[in-house]
Amino acid sequence: MPIDHRHPRDIRTDIRAGRITGVTTGRGSGFVQANLAVLPKEQAYDFLLFCQRNPRPCPLLEVTDAGSADPVGMAPGADLRTDIPRYRIYRDGALAEEVTDVTPYWRDDLVAFLLGCSFTFEWALLEAGIPLRHINRGQNVAMWRTSIECRPAGIFHGPMVVSMRPIPASMVAAAVTASARFPSAHGAPIHVGDPAAIGIKDITRPDWGDAQEMERGDVPVFWACGVTPQAVALASKPAFMITHSPGHMFLTDMPNAALAAP
Amino acid sequence: MPIDHRHPRDIRTDIRAGRITGVTTGRGSGFVQANLAVLPKEQAYDFLLFCQRNPRPCPLLEVTDAGSADPVGMAPGADLRTDIPRYRIYRDGALAEEVTDVTPYWRDDLVAFLLGCSFTFEWALLEAGIPLRHINRGQNVAMWRTSIECRPAGIFHGPMVVSMRPIPASMVAAAVTASARFPSAHGAPIHVGDPAAIGIKDITRPDWGDAQEMERGDVPVFWACGVTPQAVALASKPAFMITHSPGHMFLTDMPNAALAAP
Repeated sequence: MPIDHRHPRDIRTDIRAGRITGVTTGRGSGFVQANLAVLPKEQAYDFLLFCQRNPRPCPLLEVTDAGSADPVGMAPGADLRTDIPRYRIYRDGALAEEVTDVTPYWRDDLVAFLLGCSFTFEWALLEAGIPLRHINRGQNVAMWRTSIECRPAGIFHGPMVVSMRPIPASMVAAAVTASARFPSAHGAPIHVGDPAAIGIKDITRPDWGDAQEMERGDVPVFWACGVTPQAVALASKPAFMITHSPGHMFLTDMPNAALAAP
Repeated sequence: MPIDHRHPRDIRTDIRAGRITGVTTGRGSGFVQANLAVLPKEQAYDFLLFCQRNPRPCPLLEVTDAGSADPVGMAPGADLRTDIPRYRIYRDGALAEEVTDVTPYWRDDLVAFLLGCSFTFEWALLEAGIPLRHINRGQNVAMWRTSIECRPAGIFHGPMVVSMRPIPASMVAAAVTASARFPSAHGAPIHVGDPAAIGIKDITRPDWGDAQEMERGDVPVFWACGVTPQAVALASKPAFMITHSPGHMFLTDMPNAALAAP
């Protein structure tokens, strides 16, 4: 995967013009990438409350005014309808279409939520000298639905989804402290060790992503995953919802380092 | 002011029974005290979004389900209608009544917001050995409306209110790091030094509270203040709103230390 060191603003210009339609891995290195969830105002209160009650899987970076696609806090002047390479349109909780521009679908009652993403804490882990096996192997992380129930809010309820990274035992403490500094990007692990304790029956068979090979001395470390809010929202079968397509994230103007807790 | 070392649960029992009706300073020492704001569901989305966009003045600890007075996250089994010593009822943005029990005013569409309070970071400052002059003198802190505009949300907008504590210059850095660990209780100062830079014309004349005498070598240090959300909400003249009376806080079951960022 080539590294694109340009400022996110310039990359978004290429995305908006249709010159970039692929995944955003390696693009705008050092800047925060975000998950997108768009819901009608009618469901927005419950979703906002769900995020407030479950900050580890659902770390809110930005919520737009109803009808506005301008994420003024994270990337003023950007347009969330055109500046993501690929979107998914859901109707009644089922995938209806995958498109590169949602302008024709936009409505005055839509609220866009931007949520922190694992790329930021993975950047912090790499900066701390912690190896990430899935990146070295060009794989996706392994993800599971757990037995940990999120705190419900209105129509939204469901289990927490986690991602797992094998970490050498001697580096687990450093992985915890490095990621804990980024509460807006899932923060510290929610579980270290025994997968069965959080309802994962088979560590070799993830619900999403690629199985991670454990090396001798590795400990499985689990972080809350941004798939959670999407899974929870879709489980409620909303009449209409827009998300980014997996791996096709929104590039913000916020440097990763600026998200660090003091 | 006597110190009441009992568990908040036992103190709430006395409050509920009408045996305690005064301010909560010094009660349930070591446990988080919270500001209360209650609004009808109709205004709750804008208020929740306002808090999400302005976490320093409006650090959300808990938002109840509509109609429920049980703060299940911070003090399960408590009743927010009876467990605060004194409440204020506002109608059309004006103070209508002050009561010790809001059960007769409760409605199925009311949402209760609990917000972090300066007592928690003051506890952290004292633990770090930083003197707090207003406590030694039995005064209230000094508070001002500033020229810093909060990020608006729907019907809510207005300036940030800050509190000021004189801190010896040699201890300013320690005061910053000690309070920064408590983002759920206003976190780090929003300004250190020159009052004029945030629109405070006369440091000897606060908008609320008592003037703070500066000693030689003191620096004025400003923290975002929990008066902000109340002031902003009332400025929108909501038809109905309930708050705690100043100084009469809600005692949660959460130890202060448990609110520390990792």
